[in-house]
Amino acid sequence: MEKDNLSVVVHAKGDLRLEQRPIPEPGPNEVLIQMHSVGICGSDVHYWQNGRIGDFVLKKPMVLGHEAAGRIVKVGSSVKDLKPGDRVAIEPGVPREMDEFFKSGRYNLSPTIFFCATPPDDGNLCRYYKHSANFCYKLPDNVTFEEGALIEPLSVGIHACRRAGVSLGSSVLICGSGPIGLVCLLVAKAMGASQVVITDLSSERLAMAKELGADFPLTVTKDDGPQALAKTVEDTLGYQPHITIECTGVESSIQTAIYATRSGGVLVLVGLGSEMATVPLINAAVREVDIRGVFRYCNTWPMAIAMLASGKVNVKPLVTHRFPLEQAVQAFETTRQGQGVKVMLKCDQSDQKP
Amino acid sequence: MEKDNLSVVVHAKGDLRLEQRPIPEPGPNEVLIQMHSVGICGSDVHYWQNGRIGDFVLKKPMVLGHEAAGRIVKVGSSVKDLKPGDRVAIEPGVPREMDEFFKSGRYNLSPTIFFCATPPDDGNLCRYYKHSANFCYKLPDNVTFEEGALIEPLSVGIHACRRAGVSLGSSVLICGSGPIGLVCLLVAKAMGASQVVITDLSSERLAMAKELGADFPLTVTKDDGPQALAKTVEDTLGYQPHITIECTGVESSIQTAIYATRSGGVLVLVGLGSEMATVPLINAAVREVDIRGVFRYCNTWPMAIAMLASGKVNVKPLVTHRFPLEQAVQAFETTRQGQGVKVMLKCDQSDQKP
Amino acid sequence: MEKDNLSVVVHAKGDLRLEQRPIPEPGPNEVLIQMHSVGICGSDVHYWQNGRIGDFVLKKPMVLGHEAAGRIVKVGSSVKDLKPGDRVAIEPGVPREMDEFFKSGRYNLSPTIFFCATPPDDGNLCRYYKHSANFCYKLPDNVTFEEGALIEPLSVGIHACRRAGVSLGSSVLICGSGPIGLVCLLVAKAMGASQVVITDLSSERLAMAKELGADFPLTVTKDDGPQALAKTVEDTLGYQPHITIECTGVESSIQTAIYATRSGGVLVLVGLGSEMATVPLINAAVREVDIRGVFRYCNTWPMAIAMLASGKVNVKPLVTHRFPLEQAVQAFETTRQGQGVKVMLKCDQSDQKP
Amino acid sequence: MEKDNLSVVVHAKGDLRLEQRPIPEPGPNEVLIQMHSVGICGSDVHYWQNGRIGDFVLKKPMVLGHEAAGRIVKVGSSVKDLKPGDRVAIEPGVPREMDEFFKSGRYNLSPTIFFCATPPDDGNLCRYYKHSANFCYKLPDNVTFEEGALIEPLSVGIHACRRAGVSLGSSVLICGSGPIGLVCLLVAKAMGASQVVITDLSSERLAMAKELGADFPLTVTKDDGPQALAKTVEDTLGYQPHITIECTGVESSIQTAIYATRSGGVLVLVGLGSEMATVPLINAAVREVDIRGVFRYCNTWPMAIAMLASGKVNVKPLVTHRFPLEQAVQAFETTRQGQGVKVMLKCDQSDQKP
Repeated sequence: MEKDNLSVVVHAKGDLRLEQRPIPEPGPNEVLIQMHSVGICGSDVHYWQNGRIGDFVLKKPMVLGHEAAGRIVKVGSSVKDLKPGDRVAIEPGVPREMDEFFKSGRYNLSPTIFFCATPPDDGNLCRYYKHSANFCYKLPDNVTFEEGALIEPLSVGIHACRRAGVSLGSSVLICGSGPIGLVCLLVAKAMGASQVVITDLSSERLAMAKELGADFPLTVTKDDGPQALAKTVEDTLGYQPHITIECTGVESSIQTAIYATRSGGVLVLVGLGSEMATVPLINAAVREVDIRGVFRYCNTWPMAIAMLASGKVNVKPLVTHRFPLEQAVQAFETTRQGQGVKVMLKCDQSDQKP
Repeated sequence: MEKDNLSVVVHAKGDLRLEQRPIPEPGPNEVLIQMHSVGICGSDVHYWQNGRIGDFVLKKPMVLGHEAAGRIVKVGSSVKDLKPGDRVAIEPGVPREMDEFFKSGRYNLSPTIFFCATPPDDGNLCRYYKHSANFCYKLPDNVTFEEGALIEPLSVGIHACRRAGVSLGSSVLICGSGPIGLVCLLVAKAMGASQVVITDLSSERLAMAKELGADFPLTVTKDDGPQALAKTVEDTLGYQPHITIECTGVESSIQTAIYATRSGGVLVLVGLGSEMATVPLINAAVREVDIRGVFRYCNTWPMAIAMLASGKVNVKPLVTHRFPLEQAVQAFETTRQGQGVKVMLKCDQSDQKP
Repeated sequence: MEKDNLSVVVHAKGDLRLEQRPIPEPGPNEVLIQMHSVGICGSDVHYWQNGRIGDFVLKKPMVLGHEAAGRIVKVGSSVKDLKPGDRVAIEPGVPREMDEFFKSGRYNLSPTIFFCATPPDDGNLCRYYKHSANFCYKLPDNVTFEEGALIEPLSVGIHACRRAGVSLGSSVLICGSGPIGLVCLLVAKAMGASQVVITDLSSERLAMAKELGADFPLTVTKDDGPQALAKTVEDTLGYQPHITIECTGVESSIQTAIYATRSGGVLVLVGLGSEMATVPLINAAVREVDIRGVFRYCNTWPMAIAMLASGKVNVKPLVTHRFPLEQAVQAFETTRQGQGVKVMLKCDQSDQKP
Repeated sequence: MEKDNLSVVVHAKGDLRLEQRPIPEPGPNEVLIQMHSVGICGSDVHYWQNGRIGDFVLKKPMVLGHEAAGRIVKVGSSVKDLKPGDRVAIEPGVPREMDEFFKSGRYNLSPTIFFCATPPDDGNLCRYYKHSANFCYKLPDNVTFEEGALIEPLSVGIHACRRAGVSLGSSVLICGSGPIGLVCLLVAKAMGASQVVITDLSSERLAMAKELGADFPLTVTKDDGPQALAKTVEDTLGYQPHITIECTGVESSIQTAIYATRSGGVLVLVGLGSEMATVPLINAAVREVDIRGVFRYCNTWPMAIAMLASGKVNVKPLVTHRFPLEQAVQAFETTRQGQGVKVMLKCDQSDQKP
């Protein structure tokens, strides 16, 4: 095995470095993975720029990256279902304790969960990375590594749409058409949504949304009043949407989301804004519009792989930029500037294909 | 049939009158009911004191009352399952249209629903009242008229606990121990809740809650900080409650409710406060604490009658005052002053028993 | 209005006639519809051939037909949302009573429901037919009358897939690829199923299934043992399906369906066979494979129209034969012989287009 | 630590022995427990009498017992939340793999799960036993060891009632009033069931059921026809029950259960009979009566402890016989003869209290 384990490490707010790290040794139930493709997430950039996200504070250098796929090069002594050579997608959250959340199938809520690139846990933007075998999922031959890496953002969309109860004939409003808004769009359509309205300040982003299947891209401005905007959504569809998925975290957008949703419907909060929000809670309550949040995801990889393998969802257009791992700083800068949709880092020097 | 149909009518803000109304004639699918017991609800007092509740504005005189039971004296030509002499509880909401809400079993959300004592629809605080036969439910012999009348507030508790998903072993925080908090307590216990914490500013109200089965009555003050109070709840139980039912509508109490609820749990909003509320929405969202409102209730009468008949729920202690219909003004004044829990008006001059 | 109301009437077992019936007059909440397209269902043929289906026995002549769409020509005095000229699809089941089933959103289970072409209720295979306005649904301009008529069989598929809980990434086994198996296939795919295995004795039918999107058409023979066939399904998919939808009613196929379904999965029984069935109930029970039946459908028309209007589901290939109403006997004979998939009768002499 | 680890071991069909076994050493995440109270289950007797249950075949000597509670005497190096001296109830099933079932909260369906006293896994009818710390649950001071041991059969009732969806006002038919029928009764009542009919051949058993809260104990005979018996149940209640819980496994009783359950209701199969059963599946299907099985239970211990601690459920009357561990053979013989309800073995020589 080669000695190179170039890793993208944030040392402190504003201090991003490429440095060598030792190649880890997998434990009995772990596998060692030669990383192939790792997407850059807004949270990676946020740790670099701010050194923290909410209560998660960087206290020591941390390897970034959690949207990842690679090839297994070594397996621990107890691993049964995986072997060297297997191509896998990596689920970044691994519960550490069999607590009530894990036992009841909501392990994403387990407070002690390991999670790639959330302090103090290292991520996988590097050449070699070890991970629990139970949270690595074999990729079929017709699913690329990049598709495998994109399962992570896709999982946010799956979890949001599942929590929202998107089903056959659902009409959906998605607020915001950044990467998360777009995966919500893809998933909502795959789950049978008949009509999707998607909003954004940027008409460029909406053009991408249109391409990915949005029925009604709707350009909004910062001056739109929430109730007026809700009315525009209703006029656009001819009725109020059953479901709203809020991906911006902006207070006025949450207000719009409440006013816009049909009585008896569901509002899912995906975007994160400031700690306190002023919202028309009574309006939601008396119309029985349920407000549900999402924290990451759980039990999404198998179904995401099934969707990708069967061609039900096409995530390939989301990748707009690629950089070799050595140019990680330039890649992060590209993401920071909001260019394109998804920037992919190619970690395997001998195979930089998708 | 006698000519007396003394009715309690609010003419305008502050103008409450007892006056004679014509005895109505039931339509083909309606029944005429001789009213026996009608409870006074906070909303009745609110229409009297303010002439409106939110968007529901009094534009013409309206008979009050919607917590009611009586005896059928006449049935319409198409009525099959009821007959004169039957003792019935009255569900005050009757959907007028077979819209999407009605067809899917959530008729309480139907925007055109008839509802007793909500403008412009008259209530049943009178001697004789006609109602849709489909929304009158026969009372077994061992259920009193007053219990029948109390099914209406009990239904608020049933709908709230059902929306909350209270089940075997649930731990529940109830904010506020007015009449609605108390029925939520009774229902939560009957649905299998193991531990219930209930809060109030008044230790008198909490004493009643204790008597009705609350495990932990908790006196609060207006100066308690939401996060500190949430911590007190956790310390009291030894863990965070799965479910919180907020019955005050006060902003700080909603904040407490969010902080107090366990990750993956549910907060149900029953109390109504001001239009906009400032709340830690992100705290709820990232811990997947669902926020659900309730609007009245649906499909609760049959199960409420089953509960009362089998003795699973005892609502009788809720009635703390009784007045003959002729003394309605005094009864309303008693309610306005917040005395006791439930004031019951006795509409049948020949039978003033419970 | 013209006088012609040619109707297809079954008088007794084996006695099918075309005869004139009076044009009905719509009641206050009804509409009169000039029928355009009506599909022939297996149950129509069954009443003709056998004079009964289970406990539903033909006791007097009955107009057949319940897969229907047409144009409104007259509306009752209370009808608000429909007007002459509107193109509508007809939901054939109309609950007569506000019983517990209707109130809770499962009106298909209401024992007194009116249902087209189920004794003693007349169907709509005729020129003019009146129906409850609440169960007529306006068709958008881009949905044809024939698509409108096909909403009825499509609804069987929607109800079955909804009861089965088909969702994103579900793997599904469908037993039987007659018209109902095919609509289940279409709907399962639209709801996000990733892999669908569909079986049949006839390779011709399976060719149609393949064309409509089946991933694995599987030819079976009457000699296949249930456990062996279940193993073949598992080998075909590489795993056991989450969900099985049984559309044949044949005992051995129900046995296969139980063995084939994954632990924790769902088996939906759509096909109807003999009264008693011998099945490996314990095998299902200890693996927590739920067995759920379907009776017709409820709350499907709006979502079906949304799906058709948005192009998410394409039912057009299901129509393989068309006959003018005057040739109804020939059309019934074609269906009886099992030719093609769906035979459509064209009731409007001035417009025989799809 | 003393050397005595007297254990109840079945060597082969009909060959039950008391013998010494080495005291095990707990692994890093395990605890060593001094057993206090262990109930005898029908399955223990079945392995003794038959050497197998279905596909689970005794191939080497096996310690019996899986309804158990005791006191921790030693903890492994990684155990955090338990310490020597803690009184615990033992959940006998411990998943070995993080497979799809475990990750989604249904670990009871995991095919590789460890389960006490199911071949080849040893049970805990002995003096000292080691177990995964994650599946030992601390008992509050007011819950006895015997109550702790009874959580196992209680869990069968909880899982069955939860799968059945018992809720406020449910009416329930329970077929069979052996130990499992009785725990289903206790749980159904605690979850809010208003009326419970329970059947048995034995009027003695029904007397116990009556004492534990059954509303209608119903003596049946082997000659009762299923449809006639279903009618008797309906006549007894005045309506059909929403839910039936079948605890006998007898074919005719399953038939009765189907006929008896209300349209749209649920039948849960708890009792296990012969591999194939002849049942009126169509009757269930067209009335949308769901048929659900149960396999053991999952996520029940915490809620069971909450119920016992709060006094919501009283299981103490279930214990009708007690024997010291040394008299295990006599205890097994008592169970085999069907005497009483639950026989409890007392494993701690210094404390034989409940």
